Amino acid sequence: MQVISRAIQKQMENASWIRRMFEKGMELKKQFGADKVFDFSLGNPDIPPPARAREALLAITEEAVKPMGLGYCPNAGLPAFREALAAWLTNQQRVPLESKHIVVTCGAAGALTSFFRAVIEPGDEVLSPAPYFVEYGAYCGHFGGVLKTVPSLPPSFQPDLPGLEASITEKTRVLIINSPNNPTGCVYSQQTLTKLGQLVERVNATRERPLFLVSDEPYRFLAYDDVTIPPVLPISPFAVVMGSFSKSLSLAGERIGYIAVNPALPDVGLLVNAVTMTNRTLGFVNAPILGQRLAMALLDEGVDLSIYDRRRKAMAQVLTDAGIKFAMPQGAFYFFPKAPGGDDQAFVQALLKYNVLAVPGTGFGFSGYFRLSFSVEDSVIAGSAAGFAAAAKQF
Amino acid sequence: MQVISRAIQKQMENASWIRRMFEKGMELKKQFGADKVFDFSLGNPDIPPPARAREALLAITEEAVKPMGLGYCPNAGLPAFREALAAWLTNQQRVPLESKHIVVTCGAAGALTSFFRAVIEPGDEVLSPAPYFVEYGAYCGHFGGVLKTVPSLPPSFQPDLPGLEASITEKTRVLIINSPNNPTGCVYSQQTLTKLGQLVERVNATRERPLFLVSDEPYRFLAYDDVTIPPVLPISPFAVVMGSFSKSLSLAGERIGYIAVNPALPDVGLLVNAVTMTNRTLGFVNAPILGQRLAMALLDEGVDLSIYDRRRKAMAQVLTDAGIKFAMPQGAFYFFPKAPGGDDQAFVQALLKYNVLAVPGTGFGFSGYFRLSFSVEDSVIAGSAAGFAAAAKQF
Repeated sequence: MQVISRAIQKQMENASWIRRMFEKGMELKKQFGADKVFDFSLGNPDIPPPARAREALLAITEEAVKPMGLGYCPNAGLPAFREALAAWLTNQQRVPLESKHIVVTCGAAGALTSFFRAVIEPGDEVLSPAPYFVEYGAYCGHFGGVLKTVPSLPPSFQPDLPGLEASITEKTRVLIINSPNNPTGCVYSQQTLTKLGQLVERVNATRERPLFLVSDEPYRFLAYDDVTIPPVLPISPFAVVMGSFSKSLSLAGERIGYIAVNPALPDVGLLVNAVTMTNRTLGFVNAPILGQRLAMALLDEGVDLSIYDRRRKAMAQVLTDAGIKFAMPQGAFYFFPKAPGGDDQAFVQALLKYNVLAVPGTGFGFSGYFRLSFSVEDSVIAGSAAGFAAAAKQF
Repeated sequence: MQVISRAIQKQMENASWIRRMFEKGMELKKQFGADKVFDFSLGNPDIPPPARAREALLAITEEAVKPMGLGYCPNAGLPAFREALAAWLTNQQRVPLESKHIVVTCGAAGALTSFFRAVIEPGDEVLSPAPYFVEYGAYCGHFGGVLKTVPSLPPSFQPDLPGLEASITEKTRVLIINSPNNPTGCVYSQQTLTKLGQLVERVNATRERPLFLVSDEPYRFLAYDDVTIPPVLPISPFAVVMGSFSKSLSLAGERIGYIAVNPALPDVGLLVNAVTMTNRTLGFVNAPILGQRLAMALLDEGVDLSIYDRRRKAMAQVLTDAGIKFAMPQGAFYFFPKAPGGDDQAFVQALLKYNVLAVPGTGFGFSGYFRLSFSVEDSVIAGSAAGFAAAAKQF
């Protein structure tokens, strides 16, 4: 019998590469033991939350056990948290944000689906540079949106701006960027952003239905070597920023993120109200109350970034020693090296023989490369060196 | 400029009655002081969480601050929580459930949207007895589903079974029931459920694409006067149960619920995998990790139900004294009385003059009645007596 819909049936048949590698990893760990498997497939932040998390959770406990302590909160988020986020984001984005421009969401993922539901008409297109975060297609596809992609320019992986502009049609409702980028580790320069803002201005000059520039930026906190991550809101009144505390505070499982809309957007209040409503009617209702209180308490804290930097350098050494070509990541916790031999799926299969798990670039819409998450213990990086070297030798 | 989609624009114009009353209430509280306003408009559980919640949260804190303590968990939920839920639901539903039949969700709302996304083709119909929970239309509408309703039979508000059967077409994908019912307080009898099971069997005997019987039951824990709430899974292999701990543990803001599929459903594994995927791609990713741990720790606990029963009796007295006709609620925490004079919107307006907030039945697809939530302090009930009496006298 047909218990699921045709669209979902099709999506399940095309199960994501990340998921497939995850299942392969489970198998290998069972067979060889977890310490013999070198799993770079998942972006699950493994650094403990900031030290103040214990103290904050103890205080939250006392609030939580009161009447209504865990009750519904306004759909857009705890008023005090929205206020705090407004101040925090004003400082970060260099645009004067008030709480009325912000909705607290279930992670950046919940921000994206709530936003897509609010703005997309069936048949609208969402344009993204490739490689891209694998879920964008599903996120907009729920509401009849269609993902289109334009390859970025290796080795730096800055976006192909003329290519993006040439791909914009009347149906393009959203241009989405992700910097620091998953999977490439690229940080978009100020020059890139300025040009993106000009591009959006040119497009919207002739439009009644605006093109939005969406910045999906859960890795904003994580850049290396004094690279700066320029704010996106100042580059266009049509810019919308979505972020999350999943990685910056290592609370990915508690699902806390936000959407911040440029106050200069025409009808900004209407859009914020619409997202507040879709956040409710998609079933989120409100972002989890314990997580909101925790993120509010830890807003000025962060996980220890020196750990990520140390791993980045160790991973770079392993790849260099194996003769694998890569651009050093400027941000986030991923490498996106060139697959020796050029066939990413073949190379990822070769790595598997040495119990090394990676994800082929094909899974991110960009073949010929592969992704490594270095959100893993130092011992995993060190232990993988022989496997990378042996696999690379075969190509 | 058109910053939001046409469908969402239309939904915003038809803002829910609950929301309108909420805003009216905010206004009145500002003007007269919160203690002078008698707000029966919201179903926000105000009884504190069970006493063991403090101890549980302290233990959870120690887990949370470890590496990965707040990290992503499997999309379907913490394995230990799914196991515990399987045992708990097996006992409650009288059907042998295993963890593989269960997905932990962001409340019952998240269960409904994830399920609708998994099974609905554009144009499919969702059939519900009226009055009904106001969000059903939006929940299925995201994915091209259309809500159809059939009036239930006052004064008991048991469903109109022949009416429901006559309304089923080839496009009817889901028949959704809600017992104990919001807003009527009605509990569906065993006889009603048995007949519903037979109805679903007749429909599915000729179908390749089954009709699902969805039981939305966040109030299963709350019945009065020794009324029993019969389990729904045993009545049909096509039955799917969705529940939440929002009311039973007073943690509505933390968003923890579940979906349990009858193991006898053909392709049960495919449906559970599909819901696990849609739960991920709708942006929930996984139900909040702190809430999952808390609900697991408190699974055999409950809030103090005698408080709700005391309020129910006090509210009944207030209505009786005002000469307002009602059926005594068998479960949940709502009254759905007949509007004196017959015009629910006019009567709710009259109540407003006495600072009493209620929601017209029109907001639930059933005019001539109005809803009162008695999840409020005893003093609110007592303080409202004069207002109810004075308003009723005008009709």
